Amino acid sequence: MAVIIQKYGGTSVGSPEKIKFVAGKVAKRYREGNDIAVVVSAMSGETDKLIRLAKELSSSPAPREMDVLVSTGEQVTIALLTMALKDLGVPARSLLAFQIGIKTDDAYMKARIQEIDVDLLKKTFAAKEVAVVAGFQGITEDGDITTLGRGGSDTSAVALAAVLGAELCEIYTDVDGVYTCDPNICNKARRLDKITYDEMLEMASLGAKVLQTRSVEFAKKYNVPILVKSTFSDEGGTLTTKEDSDMEKEVVSGITYDKNEAKITILGVQDKPGVAAKLFSPLSDNNINVDMIIQNVSSDGKQADLSFTVTKTDYDKAMKIVKAMISDLGARDVVGDPSIAKISIVGVGMRSHAGVASKMFSALSSVGINIQMISTSEIKVSCVIDEKFIELGVRVLHEAFELDKTGSAVA
Amino acid sequence: MAVIIQKYGGTSVGSPEKIKFVAGKVAKRYREGNDIAVVVSAMSGETDKLIRLAKELSSSPAPREMDVLVSTGEQVTIALLTMALKDLGVPARSLLAFQIGIKTDDAYMKARIQEIDVDLLKKTFAAKEVAVVAGFQGITEDGDITTLGRGGSDTSAVALAAVLGAELCEIYTDVDGVYTCDPNICNKARRLDKITYDEMLEMASLGAKVLQTRSVEFAKKYNVPILVKSTFSDEGGTLTTKEDSDMEKEVVSGITYDKNEAKITILGVQDKPGVAAKLFSPLSDNNINVDMIIQNVSSDGKQADLSFTVTKTDYDKAMKIVKAMISDLGARDVVGDPSIAKISIVGVGMRSHAGVASKMFSALSSVGINIQMISTSEIKVSCVIDEKFIELGVRVLHEAFELDKTGSAVA
Repeated sequence: MAVIIQKYGGTSVGSPEKIKFVAGKVAKRYREGNDIAVVVSAMSGETDKLIRLAKELSSSPAPREMDVLVSTGEQVTIALLTMALKDLGVPARSLLAFQIGIKTDDAYMKARIQEIDVDLLKKTFAAKEVAVVAGFQGITEDGDITTLGRGGSDTSAVALAAVLGAELCEIYTDVDGVYTCDPNICNKARRLDKITYDEMLEMASLGAKVLQTRSVEFAKKYNVPILVKSTFSDEGGTLTTKEDSDMEKEVVSGITYDKNEAKITILGVQDKPGVAAKLFSPLSDNNINVDMIIQNVSSDGKQADLSFTVTKTDYDKAMKIVKAMISDLGARDVVGDPSIAKISIVGVGMRSHAGVASKMFSALSSVGINIQMISTSEIKVSCVIDEKFIELGVRVLHEAFELDKTGSAVA
Repeated sequence: MAVIIQKYGGTSVGSPEKIKFVAGKVAKRYREGNDIAVVVSAMSGETDKLIRLAKELSSSPAPREMDVLVSTGEQVTIALLTMALKDLGVPARSLLAFQIGIKTDDAYMKARIQEIDVDLLKKTFAAKEVAVVAGFQGITEDGDITTLGRGGSDTSAVALAAVLGAELCEIYTDVDGVYTCDPNICNKARRLDKITYDEMLEMASLGAKVLQTRSVEFAKKYNVPILVKSTFSDEGGTLTTKEDSDMEKEVVSGITYDKNEAKITILGVQDKPGVAAKLFSPLSDNNINVDMIIQNVSSDGKQADLSFTVTKTDYDKAMKIVKAMISDLGARDVVGDPSIAKISIVGVGMRSHAGVASKMFSALSSVGINIQMISTSEIKVSCVIDEKFIELGVRVLHEAFELDKTGSAVA
């Protein structure tokens, strides 16, 4: 008998009819003889509705109370899904984070899971009941409710799969898998049957919104296979798993992009130790995440231009902070550009293949796209380009690396 | 420094604007130097909305899951009110039943409070924080969520007042107190400044919907004074308190009525032991509450007609059950009447005054109202009459007992 974790996202449980449909899917798996824990998100739109309510009460709602508030969304869904399961004759029990002891730190609104007590879950399985678990939420040592950040239910599901030694973590959503690129802007996008944790990590953090990045980190750490599938179709699915020897190593597995980026350049920064720290500490103190950073030293070696990217949402705040520091940094000026975007290629095969980056640059330049910044890791290359060229860039790279064909071209 | 418990009902916290207004009221009391626990209900309409959702998923939703579902309403309100308080600079902390240990039995949807752990509440007061407590909910020994039944937040508030030794339990609602009768049907209704627990108990159980009956039982047991006031007016208020010697004993304090009653009469029941048990056990097994019961033995002493009342909601179900038992009960026939209602007079002074009941009967008959059933206790007399005469009956009794004047007439 296998332990299976299933997770259903907000659009999959967005109405009573859809919840009944999901109950039918769970019942089928249950009747095959499996021990099942189902993790559900809030009904689509509910979390946003609660956040709007909070904003009406306070311009900066207390984070502890935000978590008390938004965690109700999942509580509603687990109760409803459990009712639907019982109506189908499937024994089931809803479980909240405080009940099964999903312990987190106390970083409200972005807490990290530290520990899960499996006793109650195992008792539930022993009683032949389906455990219907509220995703997204946790509980601190002191008994305060926390939430795991946007997409946190993915992480709840993977964490449960890890502690229960589940055979598989099935993530049901409104797409039928992970694609070589966004099918909305490239009609040649191809669904990937399999992808490695590292590739999925890069894709998730680069803007492909299928899984929460942290859930993939968790899955990689505990070696939990994740199957991303569509709730409403039996076809397709993408398995995220560890890199194994017989797995075909794609040079490039996918093209991702992120439009929520903005660029800030500080001109004529003094090139001496401590400048970067002086610049970036106030940004992180203000909860502004800096993504790419590039510094060019001038020919005389005394001055540098320093560029970095932040999210478009943080752009105004970041510009204000940086402008206030110009003289302190010994800089000449600050210029910003909120109309940029990031385009990336990802693939584990890149490690053993030379020339992947240069092929990317050539492809972009072949259609006249100027590259403003470049950043690389072992398995990805990212370029900042003018936002308006993003769709073109994705299509041209998809073509260049022949991603519409199974097994991508070698550079 | 006094400990004050305030409770705000659903209409008092029905919108972000109203929650802000309530926060202002709490802040005022807090700044007077009191330790405050605020109990709030769900925003008006929310509980019903959740119940409707459940009904869409199952014709008989599992009670355990109903409680998981409907308890979210109060969780939302405590988070929002706490945010609003913090915005006013008042330190505050939302608290759920599982956090402060409001222990109940496991009778889902109508659980009874057994114990409250005051540690966390006292810590909250010691930290000079307002405790914003979710009403209506509790937690079982096993950690399951329970709810206390309709109006259960009143009981939460009174129970907190009892365990914390509060000076006063303030219940804020959409009316400014308890009236001699329903002001909507009798324009001479007068607000009572003071009422005893026993009178309030009778009024609550007879249909005056100001307080949940159980909250008054609790208040009486622990001698907690309850002040019922309007959220949106500083005027008025009715204090429910113990009967003291210097309190003027009203012969009749109020007239109440309950339209949600239906009558069932079994004709020609054999008059022998065990018949009543045989009849009422299947009703209680089906969760049907029987209110008044009257039996008249026939002249030959061998047969009886037995009448009883149930809620209109339970009428069809009850008729079906009783009809199926006719031959078993050795009865001749069953007749029912769903268009009746109950009218009652309540007053502690009745105990020491004769003739109160007969005055009631005369008043009703003076306007041609026929009395179908009568039931009495030490401090109340109830009559079942034709539903269509209820408003007339209330007005005529209000007049007869001169309730528009302070200090009611002696019979």
